[in-house]
Amino acid sequence: MYRSARNLQLFSAALSNLRAAQRSVTVRNICPAPGLLHSPLRMASSESFRIERDTFGELRVPSDKYYGAQTVRSTMNFKIGGATERMPIQVIKAFGILKKAAAEVNKDYGLDPKIADAIIKAADEVAAGKLDDHFPLVVWQTGSGTQTNMNVNEVISNRAIEILGGKLGSKDPVHPNDHVNKSQSSNDTFPTAMHIAAATEVHQVLLPGLQTLHDALAAKAEQFKDIIKIGRTHTQDAVPLSLGQEFGGYVQQVKYSIERVKASMPHVYELAAGGTAVGTGLNTRIGFAEKVADKVAALTGLPFITAPNKFEALAAHDALVELSGSLNTVAVSMMKIANDIRFLGSGPRSGLGELILPENEPGSSIMPGKVNPTQCEAMTMVAAQVMGNHVAVTVGGSNGHFELNVFKPMIIKNVLNSARLLGDASVSFTNNCVAGIEANTERINKLMNESLMLVTALNPHIGYDKAAAIAKTAHKEGSTLKATAVKLGFLTEEQFEQWVRPQDMLGPK
Amino acid sequence: MYRSARNLQLFSAALSNLRAAQRSVTVRNICPAPGLLHSPLRMASSESFRIERDTFGELRVPSDKYYGAQTVRSTMNFKIGGATERMPIQVIKAFGILKKAAAEVNKDYGLDPKIADAIIKAADEVAAGKLDDHFPLVVWQTGSGTQTNMNVNEVISNRAIEILGGKLGSKDPVHPNDHVNKSQSSNDTFPTAMHIAAATEVHQVLLPGLQTLHDALAAKAEQFKDIIKIGRTHTQDAVPLSLGQEFGGYVQQVKYSIERVKASMPHVYELAAGGTAVGTGLNTRIGFAEKVADKVAALTGLPFITAPNKFEALAAHDALVELSGSLNTVAVSMMKIANDIRFLGSGPRSGLGELILPENEPGSSIMPGKVNPTQCEAMTMVAAQVMGNHVAVTVGGSNGHFELNVFKPMIIKNVLNSARLLGDASVSFTNNCVAGIEANTERINKLMNESLMLVTALNPHIGYDKAAAIAKTAHKEGSTLKATAVKLGFLTEEQFEQWVRPQDMLGPK
Amino acid sequence: MYRSARNLQLFSAALSNLRAAQRSVTVRNICPAPGLLHSPLRMASSESFRIERDTFGELRVPSDKYYGAQTVRSTMNFKIGGATERMPIQVIKAFGILKKAAAEVNKDYGLDPKIADAIIKAADEVAAGKLDDHFPLVVWQTGSGTQTNMNVNEVISNRAIEILGGKLGSKDPVHPNDHVNKSQSSNDTFPTAMHIAAATEVHQVLLPGLQTLHDALAAKAEQFKDIIKIGRTHTQDAVPLSLGQEFGGYVQQVKYSIERVKASMPHVYELAAGGTAVGTGLNTRIGFAEKVADKVAALTGLPFITAPNKFEALAAHDALVELSGSLNTVAVSMMKIANDIRFLGSGPRSGLGELILPENEPGSSIMPGKVNPTQCEAMTMVAAQVMGNHVAVTVGGSNGHFELNVFKPMIIKNVLNSARLLGDASVSFTNNCVAGIEANTERINKLMNESLMLVTALNPHIGYDKAAAIAKTAHKEGSTLKATAVKLGFLTEEQFEQWVRPQDMLGPK
Amino acid sequence: MYRSARNLQLFSAALSNLRAAQRSVTVRNICPAPGLLHSPLRMASSESFRIERDTFGELRVPSDKYYGAQTVRSTMNFKIGGATERMPIQVIKAFGILKKAAAEVNKDYGLDPKIADAIIKAADEVAAGKLDDHFPLVVWQTGSGTQTNMNVNEVISNRAIEILGGKLGSKDPVHPNDHVNKSQSSNDTFPTAMHIAAATEVHQVLLPGLQTLHDALAAKAEQFKDIIKIGRTHTQDAVPLSLGQEFGGYVQQVKYSIERVKASMPHVYELAAGGTAVGTGLNTRIGFAEKVADKVAALTGLPFITAPNKFEALAAHDALVELSGSLNTVAVSMMKIANDIRFLGSGPRSGLGELILPENEPGSSIMPGKVNPTQCEAMTMVAAQVMGNHVAVTVGGSNGHFELNVFKPMIIKNVLNSARLLGDASVSFTNNCVAGIEANTERINKLMNESLMLVTALNPHIGYDKAAAIAKTAHKEGSTLKATAVKLGFLTEEQFEQWVRPQDMLGPK
Repeated sequence: MYRSARNLQLFSAALSNLRAAQRSVTVRNICPAPGLLHSPLRMASSESFRIERDTFGELRVPSDKYYGAQTVRSTMNFKIGGATERMPIQVIKAFGILKKAAAEVNKDYGLDPKIADAIIKAADEVAAGKLDDHFPLVVWQTGSGTQTNMNVNEVISNRAIEILGGKLGSKDPVHPNDHVNKSQSSNDTFPTAMHIAAATEVHQVLLPGLQTLHDALAAKAEQFKDIIKIGRTHTQDAVPLSLGQEFGGYVQQVKYSIERVKASMPHVYELAAGGTAVGTGLNTRIGFAEKVADKVAALTGLPFITAPNKFEALAAHDALVELSGSLNTVAVSMMKIANDIRFLGSGPRSGLGELILPENEPGSSIMPGKVNPTQCEAMTMVAAQVMGNHVAVTVGGSNGHFELNVFKPMIIKNVLNSARLLGDASVSFTNNCVAGIEANTERINKLMNESLMLVTALNPHIGYDKAAAIAKTAHKEGSTLKATAVKLGFLTEEQFEQWVRPQDMLGPK
Repeated sequence: MYRSARNLQLFSAALSNLRAAQRSVTVRNICPAPGLLHSPLRMASSESFRIERDTFGELRVPSDKYYGAQTVRSTMNFKIGGATERMPIQVIKAFGILKKAAAEVNKDYGLDPKIADAIIKAADEVAAGKLDDHFPLVVWQTGSGTQTNMNVNEVISNRAIEILGGKLGSKDPVHPNDHVNKSQSSNDTFPTAMHIAAATEVHQVLLPGLQTLHDALAAKAEQFKDIIKIGRTHTQDAVPLSLGQEFGGYVQQVKYSIERVKASMPHVYELAAGGTAVGTGLNTRIGFAEKVADKVAALTGLPFITAPNKFEALAAHDALVELSGSLNTVAVSMMKIANDIRFLGSGPRSGLGELILPENEPGSSIMPGKVNPTQCEAMTMVAAQVMGNHVAVTVGGSNGHFELNVFKPMIIKNVLNSARLLGDASVSFTNNCVAGIEANTERINKLMNESLMLVTALNPHIGYDKAAAIAKTAHKEGSTLKATAVKLGFLTEEQFEQWVRPQDMLGPK
Repeated sequence: MYRSARNLQLFSAALSNLRAAQRSVTVRNICPAPGLLHSPLRMASSESFRIERDTFGELRVPSDKYYGAQTVRSTMNFKIGGATERMPIQVIKAFGILKKAAAEVNKDYGLDPKIADAIIKAADEVAAGKLDDHFPLVVWQTGSGTQTNMNVNEVISNRAIEILGGKLGSKDPVHPNDHVNKSQSSNDTFPTAMHIAAATEVHQVLLPGLQTLHDALAAKAEQFKDIIKIGRTHTQDAVPLSLGQEFGGYVQQVKYSIERVKASMPHVYELAAGGTAVGTGLNTRIGFAEKVADKVAALTGLPFITAPNKFEALAAHDALVELSGSLNTVAVSMMKIANDIRFLGSGPRSGLGELILPENEPGSSIMPGKVNPTQCEAMTMVAAQVMGNHVAVTVGGSNGHFELNVFKPMIIKNVLNSARLLGDASVSFTNNCVAGIEANTERINKLMNESLMLVTALNPHIGYDKAAAIAKTAHKEGSTLKATAVKLGFLTEEQFEQWVRPQDMLGPK
Repeated sequence: MYRSARNLQLFSAALSNLRAAQRSVTVRNICPAPGLLHSPLRMASSESFRIERDTFGELRVPSDKYYGAQTVRSTMNFKIGGATERMPIQVIKAFGILKKAAAEVNKDYGLDPKIADAIIKAADEVAAGKLDDHFPLVVWQTGSGTQTNMNVNEVISNRAIEILGGKLGSKDPVHPNDHVNKSQSSNDTFPTAMHIAAATEVHQVLLPGLQTLHDALAAKAEQFKDIIKIGRTHTQDAVPLSLGQEFGGYVQQVKYSIERVKASMPHVYELAAGGTAVGTGLNTRIGFAEKVADKVAALTGLPFITAPNKFEALAAHDALVELSGSLNTVAVSMMKIANDIRFLGSGPRSGLGELILPENEPGSSIMPGKVNPTQCEAMTMVAAQVMGNHVAVTVGGSNGHFELNVFKPMIIKNVLNSARLLGDASVSFTNNCVAGIEANTERINKLMNESLMLVTALNPHIGYDKAAAIAKTAHKEGSTLKATAVKLGFLTEEQFEQWVRPQDMLGPK
């Protein structure tokens, strides 16, 4: 059934949340920011509270939440942007993987197995998305992502305490800093989570999406390989090519897109974990960094390694700027392809009309029967967004200072957004547009045969200047190339028919 | 019948798609659709369906939703990005205002008052945010926003039908196109909603936020007006100024930020409504455009007028690119101010240490007692994001073709995001940082008195070259300016004390 | 002596550097320095040298140049980019105006009239472009532009010395710092020159260029006002408008472009002069700032005033970021207009073909007779460049620290480049394209009459759904709207002819 | 001697040019654009003319120039930007290489050896930079670069005609299209020249520059390896690291910069030559493309190959967008490094003061003795410019249509500018800053020993919360960590001394 029990549960949680907000005079220290109204789920709070404390003092925490004082404090201090601006859930899941890996390694190095195992179990739940409602923080917090790291530490510690039968908020027997964050700093864990999240999104969403698009375009290139059409350069009529060749250019762009993304991954596979606060690895053990990277690699199936230089890994995010640069190049390719397809499919009667695009939905609220290249529009909007995201990443990446870049949450938000949008849009564009494109062969033939640029085939026989005279005269007089060529006395009708054959103009001789 | 075999095929594909989705609910009931994970409220669906139809055929619509077939079709065709990528709710509310205004004007021009009044009531509910859950569409749809316009038309028509006791989905007695969209096209309503939403966000969030920041900085400038400190140019020691003067520069930047935003509003107040499909106003009545703008102005309290040229208003979004340009300039100012404040507050012992910033939360998960300028970090991340958003808006704005720009949803998403983030961050930065800044006068005095650049005051008395000799020698020998000046024989101790007085160096003479 | 051992060392290093350069002349006399290849005029040097000194020591200066030691030192220290990267000559000329104004005011305040008058005369020559060869420095120098300010001070002082019969390099009787730079710092003069140069370029090149384009487009809008054509939205056929209306949209964009640029000028008219080193005005006299602004206003005919807050004027360049934002919006408009024109003029036989663009030159080195919309291409390339320049300006503007932004030369280079390119391209585009555009009325009529979207006029008579059925059926069957409408029984032939009249579809009723 | 014979020659050419300009009433069709005033060398014209013709008619060409009618026509039609906007000379030289390679291959395929050899000789001169004055065209021309290709064809044909004793402008015996451009189109030659120029600039300027910087930073990292200093995160005091480790982070960034640039070269090595007008290779011979790529590879020593898909190679410039993305990432790294160095070197008395930067020149025109981190400023300005250039390239790259991207000249201008600026700035930054950096060990030790963050070493011994209490108390009371720790009773003095040892905090244990 569509409306599950869970939805009911979510709805009533939301309801009670709203009620709580209404009563918020008494609890205003933790009331949701104004922008958190529309999607309060991950923020949902009950009416009852427990007291937790951090080094700044005590705070009331909703009883039904695993997070603690530092998370609540962040929601009080950073009321910026609201629910749509939450830390991407991919980062939270990546943290789940990392905390599990770290706990396993800490166990090897002597952490009480009971504590370690509870942390591992709780971290598994975070990685599996079972605790998503416990991560209310927005991106616009501290630039190191410390508050999200602490949010994760608090949730895991409380959940682990619960597993071990302890009291939430007691930090006993599992302390968020001393145990969950053991041998770690926000400064190395957050960038590690950034890389895990980015690599995962690339592999799970972006690359499969691009491959889907590639294969569909390749199938079209094959399907259209014998359809000869007029080429267009400068948007003007040019010499012919096959429609398959034209699509072959798009195939190549997507093929290279995939290559580009892959080529920018090696440094993304480098993990900062083990660098702790400034890159030195203070308070870790020799081998910790390598073991954590190995664990993460095993858990994700991706070739993560420990970063060879932890100072670079904390202070700079060049690896993600580089990846974003590849996504930007992919966006450039997508803009070109989607633009071409909508122009080639323009019409139905007053456009170029060479392609027939699938009709997916009514195109106009006022013009009956109108159908639009909406998938191309979604794709080109995505492309523009990715270009913008890239500039945000670039600005953030360039403004690190000393031992730490503090634009981390913003950078990863944009990289993940770009990867996701490009991947999703590629699939949507493929399924709802590319896969159903048909050639309007009648129109294609008509345009091709009327073209003046077929005259180019005469260059080797009569030279550029005479060929130009033919084309210009035919254009001026509205006549055919053949008639004009013969009339001007440059060649015979037979020569024209022998020399000017579109099917012979598709390659070198 | 205009429903072709292909449409049937699409319909049954959609149906099986929906069935698959239903089945998937029982398997993984957390995921209604990929990407819709975290905030499913606006997407929540019931178990039962009704049948609705558009010109492409029939579709099942959740019984508890007011939207209709075209909305459902969009959710099927545009699975891009998930819940965080929904059309900003501000656009939906702006549509509520616009649809109300249009219905009132249509009523004046003869629309059945019963129908008009029901539309007005339903539109009011949309504007008030009461129907937010009925707008599931993402930004990455058709570039004209047609699907969101139809989403609004469908919700209002069904809600109005309900008000009038009719049957949901019957389009009777209130038709989404013929009545709710009367005298309108997506092509003029969507840009109208864009402008209403942008202007509202600017006035409700951005300008108050900037004013808050301005006032707090101005209070600090006044508070610090008698504290003389060393200036820094090229990050190097320079001649003195007062801390109040330094903050006065920030005050001026924020003052101008407010002016800049206001100066870029006039074209945003121009509404496209009345232009319908291509700007001509086909199917509207003379005066419709002006009356709608008047109604919207009355409903919002903002000085909206009808756009003097509807062709420009549909085909271009220069007005929003211009506004985005102002937001970009504001971001530039914010980056400067927040950077200065964190550097001036750097320390506590190894930084510049002239300012004492409020301590809001534990700063490190590993370094005990560390406090960081996190509000500056949130602000500078916001600034970077706004710069990126601006490029996305620029690219989208530049790629319109012929009578319509089809990057509309992407453009408004970014403009609203920039306005909201800057406004919210200004308030957060003010309340949690600026308002609590104190001067470390001891440190400030120490640095100022040690400075070599006080030598500049000697230029008018002994010339640049001799003054340089004093400074360089003092620097080399680690001595004071006075001792060096006297030693070099350029002046007497008395002259030095008379000429080199920081308090006399704060302005022209 | 303040010349340390290190300075001696630097000096001899410089000397041997110069000797090496001299030797290299005999070996490869094309290359005076890497990068200075193509336009060596402003760098051209003679064989003989004089000795000049700055606070770092002595240097050899070419005898035929007015510049001095600090200029030479900059050419030694900043071998970046070569001749095309020189400080824009507009900045040099603006400095000429400023130095003249400052000398006049200094004279009022007691500077020896003989010295002042010589400075004024030399500054006039700089402003008039008579000494362009004496400004060899590149943009990529100190970020305050100090070296260019000193270049100007040195040239003016030496030229003034020459006028007064003194010895070049003697700093007597006119000292570059004590006299030419009197009451000034690089930190206030360079931003003043930036504003003078930007405002001048806007008024002399950009605004006239935009006005030229505006007028030509307006003339075309008038010329084409009775030509009814098909509209295009989503690149697809839509309802009709007149070609004059379509061009009217472009006219509005350019009209608003002019308004936008003007609206962003007020803060550009604010001059930093009088702020000296950090904004306090140290070493100036009360009234100096105001008088200098008045003089500059008088000399340029532009409404310059003294900046109300000198701290903001030195530490930030928000005013130029704002102007750059307007240029970016203009670029967006230009991209749209030029894109439309090339697509509407595409063909000659396989494109949209509604416009006939002037044929200016052979379009292809291989395709004889090909003519391309090259002016549109130049314009759209300019638009892309301006968008890029704007990001450079944004990044530079956001990275100021404390009392001084040190991205000054880069910022002004980009602003001037954008203004110049947009202005020049507007004129070129107008004269070589817009002015000669003709409508292909035959083609326009054919496309318009075949259009299915004329069906929209039936909405008010038979409703959206029936109208959609007509359009879809006609499209599917390749028939006309009228025949289909009658066949489907929705209306009579007479009704169709009465209701569907393109000439009645150009406005509200 | 510094002024060579060549300079004299240049000067008198410029002089006669100016005279010609003065008399330009009679020759205004070819007078230089307003902006060509300052560097007229490459534009220099004599008073006498010959008549040349293209397919548009006859034009007067300066007798002392090798270019022909199409070049002159371009100077008439594109008066945009002036001399600083000329097509980069690297593109011209790349064309020289390409035209030579094509002529050699054409000779193999039967072109008259006499003609081929003359073309080869002339092309060699172009590649060697001997004919630079004959390429006056600006970037803002046709977007395919056709006019520059024809400029090259005309210069080579006329020079070849001269070599063979013919008459300039006669196109006999060497025709610019039929012979010099044989088997070529602008559409494949211009992108080929773009790739040759970009790859060459990367190898000759950028990579050596980055390597120079890398090596200098690595030397500093080694030199500073035993200096222990305080770390800074969030610009706040953090745990210690060695100065060598800090510089090691920069070394890694530059190492990766080099890797990134190299990793983005493979598609740049793919040459479009052989694709001719639309990618099909019409009018070429089988094998032509491969042979030309081989020749170019041999001539340049770079691993050029023929592009596997010529359609992609003409219609898109993704390869250069990708390269530009790498340059953007390099710029991000440079911004970080240069910013750090200037902040660490800030002072001399009121900054962080840990580094002593070389003093290269007087820093202020008003503040005597001031020395500024000007090399950092040049580098960060370059970084901002490269980020802007990248956006221009991105916008241009995304706006190709059908078989041809027509933003070619703009794209290559920006890519070459970025590569050159980064390469040159790296060398300048190295030689004038990095190489001379010294550590201020006294200051470094003082700051490190005072730091509160050494408390972090206590975490494993007493836990995070107690450690925080120590740091907070010490901060509040202005006391030392040790005294506070003992006073609070958390440990003994001996324990403190054993546990808190900066030299033990530089790595894992």
